[in-house]
Amino acid sequence: MKGKLCFSSDYTKGAHPAILNRMLDTNMTATAGYGLDEISASARDRIRKACGCPEGAVVFLVGGTQTNAVMIDALLSSYQGVMAAETGHISTHEAGAIESGGHKVMTLPQENGKIKPEDAERYLEDYYGDGNRDHMVMPGLIYISQPTEYGTLYSRKELEAFRNICDRFQISLYVDGARLAYALACPENDVSLEDLSKLCDVFYIGGTKCGALFGEAVVIPDQGKIPHLFTIIKQRGALLAKGRMLGIQFDELFKDDLYLKVGSNAIKGADSIRRILTEKGYTLCFGSPTNQIFCIMENKALEKFGEKVEYSFWEKYDEDHTVIRLATDWGTTEEEIKALEEILE
Amino acid sequence: MKGKLCFSSDYTKGAHPAILNRMLDTNMTATAGYGLDEISASARDRIRKACGCPEGAVVFLVGGTQTNAVMIDALLSSYQGVMAAETGHISTHEAGAIESGGHKVMTLPQENGKIKPEDAERYLEDYYGDGNRDHMVMPGLIYISQPTEYGTLYSRKELEAFRNICDRFQISLYVDGARLAYALACPENDVSLEDLSKLCDVFYIGGTKCGALFGEAVVIPDQGKIPHLFTIIKQRGALLAKGRMLGIQFDELFKDDLYLKVGSNAIKGADSIRRILTEKGYTLCFGSPTNQIFCIMENKALEKFGEKVEYSFWEKYDEDHTVIRLATDWGTTEEEIKALEEILE
Amino acid sequence: MKGKLCFSSDYTKGAHPAILNRMLDTNMTATAGYGLDEISASARDRIRKACGCPEGAVVFLVGGTQTNAVMIDALLSSYQGVMAAETGHISTHEAGAIESGGHKVMTLPQENGKIKPEDAERYLEDYYGDGNRDHMVMPGLIYISQPTEYGTLYSRKELEAFRNICDRFQISLYVDGARLAYALACPENDVSLEDLSKLCDVFYIGGTKCGALFGEAVVIPDQGKIPHLFTIIKQRGALLAKGRMLGIQFDELFKDDLYLKVGSNAIKGADSIRRILTEKGYTLCFGSPTNQIFCIMENKALEKFGEKVEYSFWEKYDEDHTVIRLATDWGTTEEEIKALEEILE
Amino acid sequence: MKGKLCFSSDYTKGAHPAILNRMLDTNMTATAGYGLDEISASARDRIRKACGCPEGAVVFLVGGTQTNAVMIDALLSSYQGVMAAETGHISTHEAGAIESGGHKVMTLPQENGKIKPEDAERYLEDYYGDGNRDHMVMPGLIYISQPTEYGTLYSRKELEAFRNICDRFQISLYVDGARLAYALACPENDVSLEDLSKLCDVFYIGGTKCGALFGEAVVIPDQGKIPHLFTIIKQRGALLAKGRMLGIQFDELFKDDLYLKVGSNAIKGADSIRRILTEKGYTLCFGSPTNQIFCIMENKALEKFGEKVEYSFWEKYDEDHTVIRLATDWGTTEEEIKALEEILE
Repeated sequence: MKGKLCFSSDYTKGAHPAILNRMLDTNMTATAGYGLDEISASARDRIRKACGCPEGAVVFLVGGTQTNAVMIDALLSSYQGVMAAETGHISTHEAGAIESGGHKVMTLPQENGKIKPEDAERYLEDYYGDGNRDHMVMPGLIYISQPTEYGTLYSRKELEAFRNICDRFQISLYVDGARLAYALACPENDVSLEDLSKLCDVFYIGGTKCGALFGEAVVIPDQGKIPHLFTIIKQRGALLAKGRMLGIQFDELFKDDLYLKVGSNAIKGADSIRRILTEKGYTLCFGSPTNQIFCIMENKALEKFGEKVEYSFWEKYDEDHTVIRLATDWGTTEEEIKALEEILE
Repeated sequence: MKGKLCFSSDYTKGAHPAILNRMLDTNMTATAGYGLDEISASARDRIRKACGCPEGAVVFLVGGTQTNAVMIDALLSSYQGVMAAETGHISTHEAGAIESGGHKVMTLPQENGKIKPEDAERYLEDYYGDGNRDHMVMPGLIYISQPTEYGTLYSRKELEAFRNICDRFQISLYVDGARLAYALACPENDVSLEDLSKLCDVFYIGGTKCGALFGEAVVIPDQGKIPHLFTIIKQRGALLAKGRMLGIQFDELFKDDLYLKVGSNAIKGADSIRRILTEKGYTLCFGSPTNQIFCIMENKALEKFGEKVEYSFWEKYDEDHTVIRLATDWGTTEEEIKALEEILE
Repeated sequence: MKGKLCFSSDYTKGAHPAILNRMLDTNMTATAGYGLDEISASARDRIRKACGCPEGAVVFLVGGTQTNAVMIDALLSSYQGVMAAETGHISTHEAGAIESGGHKVMTLPQENGKIKPEDAERYLEDYYGDGNRDHMVMPGLIYISQPTEYGTLYSRKELEAFRNICDRFQISLYVDGARLAYALACPENDVSLEDLSKLCDVFYIGGTKCGALFGEAVVIPDQGKIPHLFTIIKQRGALLAKGRMLGIQFDELFKDDLYLKVGSNAIKGADSIRRILTEKGYTLCFGSPTNQIFCIMENKALEKFGEKVEYSFWEKYDEDHTVIRLATDWGTTEEEIKALEEILE
Repeated sequence: MKGKLCFSSDYTKGAHPAILNRMLDTNMTATAGYGLDEISASARDRIRKACGCPEGAVVFLVGGTQTNAVMIDALLSSYQGVMAAETGHISTHEAGAIESGGHKVMTLPQENGKIKPEDAERYLEDYYGDGNRDHMVMPGLIYISQPTEYGTLYSRKELEAFRNICDRFQISLYVDGARLAYALACPENDVSLEDLSKLCDVFYIGGTKCGALFGEAVVIPDQGKIPHLFTIIKQRGALLAKGRMLGIQFDELFKDDLYLKVGSNAIKGADSIRRILTEKGYTLCFGSPTNQIFCIMENKALEKFGEKVEYSFWEKYDEDHTVIRLATDWGTTEEEIKALEEILE
């Protein structure tokens, strides 16, 4: 990767410097393990405050697939499955982690990575209208990502619609916020942390892709919803011995609005890149307003581009064109964007 | 925990400073994710070299329970179980992670945390001699810890005996090295990394309890033994996106013998504490020569002791006495030991 | 159901009388359990002979979902999934049994219940062409039903195409023969038991829906393919203590061509019903040539029809019409068909 | 087995003739599948009545291991395990079916196959007294067999003690009644079906070993205890399509006290055999008063005995002696016992 510009993803560098500094400052202090330390307690308090749910439970896990697998299994009964977009992360890129825990992922059609409340509702109505439903997997949870895998956003109105459907059918609503910082910092977004706390049964605030070394903060607004979650996490091999490492990171991310700053830097950068690409005549895809930029490149040009820039292959567009993804993050600089602009000449 | 001396475990502080420094130095460098970066490659090379198995596979995971669960499941067929001491970590303190993956833990009697090769052999002979064995769980793997949960050590001769048994019955030998640094640095130890590579199907070199923030390095001397391990790890939610964090830590731990230095500091400290305790008339337990010190304390005295020192409760000894555990680690200082000595007056 | 004609399915009555007679004849004879008896041995021999695979393994299980769950899990590695029609029985009506065993069902588009070899091939090519495949479920098996859930048939040529694809990608081919008697007895069918033995890794010969009280005969042409299958079956709770009950049934079904006779009676009946329906102006669906008849009925007429005949609801056709299923079996009589014809007046 | 007397187990013959007759009588009647038929409804009513729990749920499954695996998993949370005698059927001879479902079997010491209430209580107290319990498997259920695998019986007083413990710790009590007929018919027994209904969360009435071809009747006195059990059963591959076969058998077994008659015949025969063995100087083991007879035989004598009688090997007694098991059942005749007596000369 040496000498190349890197826009391939939002987890290519280390962590925001504030996090590393805090790790240095606390390094020689002895604390209790497994997240029972005071720094983790402080981080949980900050998150509860930011979410406006003083009574909620906050739990730190290490990564996104782990979080989805542990929490979705904890929310479902053995005979239940989870509804998700056919492009949802759990449907496609988690190596069957949900099924490995015994649950079917029931896919719904998507548009730019989003599912429609009415499609979810029809799926549930069909299930309950089917005389054979006792022979079928019962839908127990709706999974959505905010932003989606295509960088798009659900509106508060859409989230409220999902909540109503979940209430009607007595199932859970779960939001995967692996890149939540980039939704929260996006001008087009109208879903706040407080909204998520009001509307979701469980959601998580991504750290790994939003400036931390690793770590995801799970919020369970109704703290009694999942009994014995500590043991569940241990059983899944997801309990970090030096749990304070998670506490340190989220304590910093939720101090002085750092989480929003991380998001803003990435959005600003992504907006610049989108402007540049448009000006240079490239076609953007999916209408993503967050930190992921999808655009179509002619294959020959892409080959050259790839010599200078790390990007992500997204999908084949046609014989001669490819959709690629560029991503910005907390550390993206104006210099990098300028360099990219020059390469795109 | 403020103002208290802390000897409760070997994972109460951060990481060895060399690790943090490397994290700072590399923080702004972009690399590939998932352990596909150059630092992780370097760390794997160093470990292969230290183990004398240039053809082996090395894989980094985040924690001990996760490592045991993922690797033991990967080694076993669905109808097989794992043999372990009734005090083995997988038998007692992993919340059923092995069973959660579908496998029985078949316990053998222990003495000071160790199982005897002849007990394992008899168990296997009984299994193969039983006309009902098709209705029983087939033993597929012997699990031992080096050092054990009681801080004791297996000798090379004992390991060779286990290897012979495994060969005879065509099962796997797995060594949990969560605290391996403290075995390797112990004068009583005669089992080297090369020995482990020769004798085990899989073993892991512990990071979390041996100076890292987190992380365990799995060594698979026969690199083709477990196909598609990357996907297995992903499926289990055990794949770290910023995988280089694991690479950085093990690259440092295996540079300039740091892993042995970490071990030596702890052993030196533990030996001092054992000497102090003996001089002051306390009874030590289990004959542990590594970084864990077990001793019997009178309950009243323990109450006072506990006001000044963080320790681990191990077990009730009798109505009036308790077995406690003290642990040293990479960061234990002479000052701390002196302070402990004074408190023990 | 009293007084009603019953065409709702092919498992509404008991068993072919020959089976009950054999059960009576052998009732007081003591035998070994778990299928280790002589009658089961004889049944296995008859099936091996009928399949032209003298070296194959034959194993009896109790029901179809059980057979699919046990055998597909036994064929797959933990990180693999199974490809199936989106209308496949394992995709829709087995309550998530495959996922419960840890495997994803990867659905392919269908037409009249059938998947196309080229769709399976493209799916596999896409998987192997995707740079992210290590994060995805690896396809490990193609599942098809013969006849399908819609009563349609795969041709030998199609099966050969699937076999070639499986060979190319080194995955398994599995055929669910829950209603295999009705394929074998169908004039349109050109796939024999010998063909299945040559082309499949595993297939099963259905008993439950083909004249037995219960039971499915699994054929594994390469007998060493699944080691320790007995223990796997026991572990899944699928081992019948009085295993000879399965042996008795299949020994009868494969004596004097009874299995074909069972099939022929049903096909003859179904053909008559199809003729009657067509003559009376009803529209048949899916082009099913086997023992399941699908036709469209006007809802008002269906209500009356339902007072006199047990049928299966299949799906809504439009606001005013419904697709229903009628099924014939080993016990369908000319009198019943005549009665049906009169009711359809 | 030809020409040999057979006392090797209680599942070597077919079914009680009353059952076969009913199967013949109903063979050509069409009914609904999956246990939704009228005969199954009648059988459930008879069992509810016999158990004095008109509000309870009764569910029919096919075999014992299946019943234990399905029901214990349905009763436990994912982080819970089941306590059982180290000789319990689920601990030893079910090929790890419980672990396959994700749960640890936590073994207690036994005497003649029985566990002591005080041992269970101490285990639970230790668990709740352990500071590390969040890292351990939570005990969620006590499993006992009535009669035990050694043919011994729990008294009502003992069962009440287990119930009190379960209430104190809010866990479930489950009784495996694979051979319940032989407990109910035993003069020493003081535990009735009504007692079981009052004291257990779930128990099952064995059919397979008590005169049926196959089948176990699960009784859930509090019918709402396990929601969606039908789907759970389907998901586990344990749902019989022609469910009435189970209904027919239990409808007969609970008509005119047949279940007790089956039991009585076996007990009468076992008592005769025990008398004969004692008179001839053999030593009986375990004090079993039910249909299983355990006795010590000298190895040379056993070899000859084995030429004429099918028996079960139980365990090695010493170098020169073996413990064997003989079993009687619904079909054991006076002639067979006389023949055995002569062979024992």
